[in-house]
Amino acid sequence: MTTNANNHDTHLAGPVLVLGTGLLGASIGLGLRARGIEVLLSDPSPSAQAVAQDIGAGRILPPGGDAAPQLVVVASPPDVTARVVSTALRQYPDAVVVDIASVKVSVMAELRRDASLTDADLARYVGTHPMAGREKSGPVAARGELFTSMPWVLCPSELSAPAAVKTARELAIDLGALVSRMSAEEHDESVALISHLPQVMSSLLASRLQDTPAHALSLSGQGLRDVTRIAASDPSLWVQILGANAPRLVKHLYGVREDLNRLINTLEHPEADGARLDLAQLMSEGNAGQARIPGKHGGPPQSFAWLTVLVDDRPGQIARLLTEIGEEGINLEDLRLDHSAGQDVGMVEISVVPGKRQQLVDYLSTHGWKVLQ
Amino acid sequence: MTTNANNHDTHLAGPVLVLGTGLLGASIGLGLRARGIEVLLSDPSPSAQAVAQDIGAGRILPPGGDAAPQLVVVASPPDVTARVVSTALRQYPDAVVVDIASVKVSVMAELRRDASLTDADLARYVGTHPMAGREKSGPVAARGELFTSMPWVLCPSELSAPAAVKTARELAIDLGALVSRMSAEEHDESVALISHLPQVMSSLLASRLQDTPAHALSLSGQGLRDVTRIAASDPSLWVQILGANAPRLVKHLYGVREDLNRLINTLEHPEADGARLDLAQLMSEGNAGQARIPGKHGGPPQSFAWLTVLVDDRPGQIARLLTEIGEEGINLEDLRLDHSAGQDVGMVEISVVPGKRQQLVDYLSTHGWKVLQ
Repeated sequence: MTTNANNHDTHLAGPVLVLGTGLLGASIGLGLRARGIEVLLSDPSPSAQAVAQDIGAGRILPPGGDAAPQLVVVASPPDVTARVVSTALRQYPDAVVVDIASVKVSVMAELRRDASLTDADLARYVGTHPMAGREKSGPVAARGELFTSMPWVLCPSELSAPAAVKTARELAIDLGALVSRMSAEEHDESVALISHLPQVMSSLLASRLQDTPAHALSLSGQGLRDVTRIAASDPSLWVQILGANAPRLVKHLYGVREDLNRLINTLEHPEADGARLDLAQLMSEGNAGQARIPGKHGGPPQSFAWLTVLVDDRPGQIARLLTEIGEEGINLEDLRLDHSAGQDVGMVEISVVPGKRQQLVDYLSTHGWKVLQ
Repeated sequence: MTTNANNHDTHLAGPVLVLGTGLLGASIGLGLRARGIEVLLSDPSPSAQAVAQDIGAGRILPPGGDAAPQLVVVASPPDVTARVVSTALRQYPDAVVVDIASVKVSVMAELRRDASLTDADLARYVGTHPMAGREKSGPVAARGELFTSMPWVLCPSELSAPAAVKTARELAIDLGALVSRMSAEEHDESVALISHLPQVMSSLLASRLQDTPAHALSLSGQGLRDVTRIAASDPSLWVQILGANAPRLVKHLYGVREDLNRLINTLEHPEADGARLDLAQLMSEGNAGQARIPGKHGGPPQSFAWLTVLVDDRPGQIARLLTEIGEEGINLEDLRLDHSAGQDVGMVEISVVPGKRQQLVDYLSTHGWKVLQ
């Protein structure tokens, strides 16, 4: 394992105090503990902090104890993040304080308005955002490797001291994340478009399915499943995120509304002059935007070649397939299973680098697999 | 292979004439040929029909030849489907004629308006819709197994003769599809919601990414990729589909617009009384709609349990993992790969029936895999 904790040099000295032991806070605790760093835990919910301690994410901060953390990680809900950061900066005057809320401008604005904080306090604060999560929440769902290979954005302000930024970076690196840096404004603009807008569009679509007849839903395909997957996300968290980034998100929603109105107008008069052209334009603009999304490896979008193999839907078949692919020395880039109601056969869609595709097709075909090119 | 052609009893006698040799028409030809049924091909594009013949989808209909097909499959673009059906009904007075366009009401309406057709002609016509496709188009992308395990909806009219419906059903069954039956109205209402609306929402979202700065796109995650995947679809085909189903699609777009206006209003005043509640309602409605989508096996939605395993990103690792899962006799329900830019480690998300989850976690952990629960 390349992420084996024992081969991993740690950067933080610790102890690290984690305030808030939900999914992310408890995962940070687990990840740091796996690297031998001392972690203290605190949560307003006694049961949440007890669970976090029980799963090995650290030990509960003793009440009234004189902890002297090197770093305080504020992992509270976005709504209360600024308040918790402010308290931590005053309570631990030697510690660096970072938060991990998914919106950054509103937290910093609230801290600036906070008369109890000096510029010297704010020099020890760095806003950050680890872009990781799960569909489940709470400390029970926590895992130390949650941040492995995921982006972790640092958003220092002009008040942040270089040493504080260095400590924030070490936290992200020790947890195996990919660190990037941008201003709070750039961050919030970015996530409005690549995270908050997709969430809203998925929810708006899924909402339409509430009264759909069963015979219609029985025709659901992978397209519908993909577009609506994130509509299953936690409403209470998203209320806070959308509320805090409202001004940036709403700009994109104006754009969507304009396109939607144009589309509705076209569909109300589908035989009108130019209707076809309007529809083609909408679809082509979607093509153009979609093509700009980077691939999973951060490489050029859509750079892999796909093929499909039929397999029996029983234990070991996919393993046998992948074993043979591995024996041919070909690395799998992505894989998707597709099998439908009541059928004994599944389709495995496999992507490889384009130069390997024909080799793999030939190899699998000669080994008795049914390859659908 | 349960779908092995040699074990498959065919129902159609043939010959079958396929009019239109794009992706779907050529795939139908390939699938029928694999079952030993005689297939004749015709396409307005000489090169398209030549490619279809070359890949083994059938032989080109000889010009002026007196073909006597049992069945004519109209696989033309939606725009010209009714015209081609009408010609076929008159040209082959003993044949059943089916079309496979993804909208059904407009085709039937155009046929009813066609003064050259009698009720006796229309008794031989059955509208159908195989719900299969690929992101690629044209006969080069065709494959005989395209319809295996996919829904194929039959939409006979009240004029359709039982024998014609039987022939249409045999076509779908011979190609391995899952046959269902509904009226043209029910079909078009269904696909407006579960296919056309998702396409539009995905395209509207993707369209917003056209001018996104690269630093924002670099934060793209699986959520954005999933929601925008189908925005890569073929504009020229979708222009015809959306145009033909405009009245049914637009009703759902009114609903989306209403929700969108409500959301914009809330986000313009995020501190107003009730703003939180409005946002929570939107998200919860999305949860409720998403939860109604059936699972891949057509079973209850969300009925599988997931776990995540870390693997090295090199050939054979995933195969080794799946081999061990197969050796434990546990059937995989779904699988998803996730690995990020420049990292050597990948995460494999695996779903199994919930009763098997703990057994699998224990088994993998004792065999040295890093399982993220």
